[in-house]
Amino acid sequence: MKAYQDMTREELLNERNRLSGLYEEVKAQGLKLDMSRGKPGADQLNLSMGMMDVLSSKEKLTGVQGVDCRNYGVLDGIIEAKQLLAQMTEVPVDNIIIYGNSSLNVMFDTIAHAYSKGICGNKPWCKYDTPVKFLCPVPGYDRHFAITEYFGIEMINIPMDENGPDMDMVEKYVNNDPLVKGIWCIPKYSNPQGVVYSDEVVKRFAALNPAADDFRIFWDNAYCIHHLDFNDRCEILEILHECEKAGHPDIVYKFCSTSKVTFPGSGIAAMGTSKKNIEDMKKQMTVQTIGHDKVNQLRHVKFFGDFNGMLEHMKKHAAILKPKFDAVLEILERELGGLGIGSWLNPKGGYFIAFDSLDGCAKRIIELTKEAGVVMTGAGATYPYHKDPHDSNIRIAPSYPSLEELKKAAEIFTLSVKLASADKILETK
Amino acid sequence: MKAYQDMTREELLNERNRLSGLYEEVKAQGLKLDMSRGKPGADQLNLSMGMMDVLSSKEKLTGVQGVDCRNYGVLDGIIEAKQLLAQMTEVPVDNIIIYGNSSLNVMFDTIAHAYSKGICGNKPWCKYDTPVKFLCPVPGYDRHFAITEYFGIEMINIPMDENGPDMDMVEKYVNNDPLVKGIWCIPKYSNPQGVVYSDEVVKRFAALNPAADDFRIFWDNAYCIHHLDFNDRCEILEILHECEKAGHPDIVYKFCSTSKVTFPGSGIAAMGTSKKNIEDMKKQMTVQTIGHDKVNQLRHVKFFGDFNGMLEHMKKHAAILKPKFDAVLEILERELGGLGIGSWLNPKGGYFIAFDSLDGCAKRIIELTKEAGVVMTGAGATYPYHKDPHDSNIRIAPSYPSLEELKKAAEIFTLSVKLASADKILETK
Repeated sequence: MKAYQDMTREELLNERNRLSGLYEEVKAQGLKLDMSRGKPGADQLNLSMGMMDVLSSKEKLTGVQGVDCRNYGVLDGIIEAKQLLAQMTEVPVDNIIIYGNSSLNVMFDTIAHAYSKGICGNKPWCKYDTPVKFLCPVPGYDRHFAITEYFGIEMINIPMDENGPDMDMVEKYVNNDPLVKGIWCIPKYSNPQGVVYSDEVVKRFAALNPAADDFRIFWDNAYCIHHLDFNDRCEILEILHECEKAGHPDIVYKFCSTSKVTFPGSGIAAMGTSKKNIEDMKKQMTVQTIGHDKVNQLRHVKFFGDFNGMLEHMKKHAAILKPKFDAVLEILERELGGLGIGSWLNPKGGYFIAFDSLDGCAKRIIELTKEAGVVMTGAGATYPYHKDPHDSNIRIAPSYPSLEELKKAAEIFTLSVKLASADKILETK
Repeated sequence: MKAYQDMTREELLNERNRLSGLYEEVKAQGLKLDMSRGKPGADQLNLSMGMMDVLSSKEKLTGVQGVDCRNYGVLDGIIEAKQLLAQMTEVPVDNIIIYGNSSLNVMFDTIAHAYSKGICGNKPWCKYDTPVKFLCPVPGYDRHFAITEYFGIEMINIPMDENGPDMDMVEKYVNNDPLVKGIWCIPKYSNPQGVVYSDEVVKRFAALNPAADDFRIFWDNAYCIHHLDFNDRCEILEILHECEKAGHPDIVYKFCSTSKVTFPGSGIAAMGTSKKNIEDMKKQMTVQTIGHDKVNQLRHVKFFGDFNGMLEHMKKHAAILKPKFDAVLEILERELGGLGIGSWLNPKGGYFIAFDSLDGCAKRIIELTKEAGVVMTGAGATYPYHKDPHDSNIRIAPSYPSLEELKKAAEIFTLSVKLASADKILETK
């Protein structure tokens, strides 16, 4: 098929009428499909049911260091959980804190700590007369942006390309403006594009010379072992080690969790960072809590055995997820390939596919899918303040629906893209 | 035996020498005992081992409303967990939020929310030029005071008597000073005295007319069902309902958890409060987390069945704890009764016995017990800033040691009290 832009007005009007008919047919079916959030599907959750059997009343709930996991104590996690998540997040065991059920919560608390008390003795961000600033690679994760927005932190868009954020821009801001205090990064299989940061990008992050002493990289390695195909997986440079080599050991906080490994909401989370930062975080933790759920830490360790066990487990997730991603990508290519009305990357891991429509079409596309019974992440959600300057980025989350539902939803999506794009082009033809 | 104060200098010197000899004998034994923290003993933890069996891979982890407890979602808790903890904290099910594993963490987050964002749209406490203030009934809980100290909140001591805090003083501060933003309360079996607030005290709390719109009572009902004898248990007026009746439905946050019901660190916590306050807290929660551990919520509900099941479970705790409290109280009475060198209350629940020594003796007593191998809560810990103006209050925590260890520890404690008191009185004789 011809690209829409290359069609005559009449050709495009005909196409538009054809699409309209198809759309009305779909709408009449009254479907209810959901491609909005990165939730694992039920078949993925079933992979972890063994978690419910690894502890029983027959055995002692005692850690390898003799800790009674049932009682108070052990602020930063039992040693065996530290060992497991230290491997997952690729830092030494002395550089990790185990937290509760959610790395998002850890990120929130880390920002809250910086805001109300200050990082490593620096001035609390709440005490500035003008708001401090955060860099936000876009498109990015709506829940990251919601945290910085909540604390009134000014967010600055940083464009992404296939190697990561625009590092010229990052360096310019970070190295010159002492009000720039942080940057949100999802360095591997980024949300929503699936971008994997190149070695050069990681090295340039490590080599930053921040104008602010309390500048930190919020390195949310949410998808570190979430490959779609273990035979074609991506690895990135380990940032903490790179920062140490570059002489800036304290500029990064790494976050990870088992939310999309075992059960979201019932997993364990961790921060990997320098010892100085760990001591600083513990000053807050020791006031905030007596300790996190050690029984659940033990449960995770017993379920996986070791990090290899965790990787084997992730291969089972990949086996479920890859066909779903393939199905969406195939439909995108089949329905939209060559039409010149959208672009996307083929991610090798993570939970999302990012679609870029013609400028000014994303909101309309989401409206159309919604009217036809497909809930998607709201247009603009991938940008700070929900403001996508081009109104073009749409996040597709293939994990939750069944394969059959997903195919239907993806077809409705591509139909909506075509309809909205035809209308947009007709405006100027 | 004569009261020490009534002895002649010679009689007291003889007594002192006798005590000294006993103390050296004890010290030579090289004991290691711990009466410092309110940790359940291993026998109490064993009561909840059934928790490890109520969920298994054989069954669906689905809530009564069809929620898949394994996946993301349900910010404020599954309905059946709400029902259970609503009964525990005596509020309607619409007035409760279920949190993670620690009510201390909920209290910290609530103060953090007030500090950084403001309660119900009020000015954030961090934006005041002078620190805001909190009332602290004393003696009280060190971890409460640590939270307010962490946020630089000025703490004001309020004396406790056997009915609760000095309400004349509370009313004077709260109703007149708009900088007074809160008060820490443990209304039932208070930490450390075991005081139960009288109906009059509760009613006077509910009738407060705070000068500050964002004044809140932090009602930490940590020991609400933690009776030592279910045939001789105390109940208090329900504060939220009293506040509603008095026309101030929003002035109280109630906190509770299952930390000392099932496993500390692996329990579930809750806040009970007005719907307006719940909406306000949810605004933060929705940014902070996707949800708490619903599998653990389900585990608790399945383990107890209902609130009656929870009460039956608490009777088993009481059967273990009461002999420990009785042993300590018996040794206190036997060794110190009539000597005029200390006083204490006989608590009917909770986790502590508070001992008041002669003024200026508490630190010395703790030093002496420590040298003889008994770790106790540090002197001053029960006061804001660790400053006990009389240096007299000591918290005894009988739950963690075995009964035999506890008796030995209590004897070393009373010996230390006698030794320090004799020295103190000899200074002026």
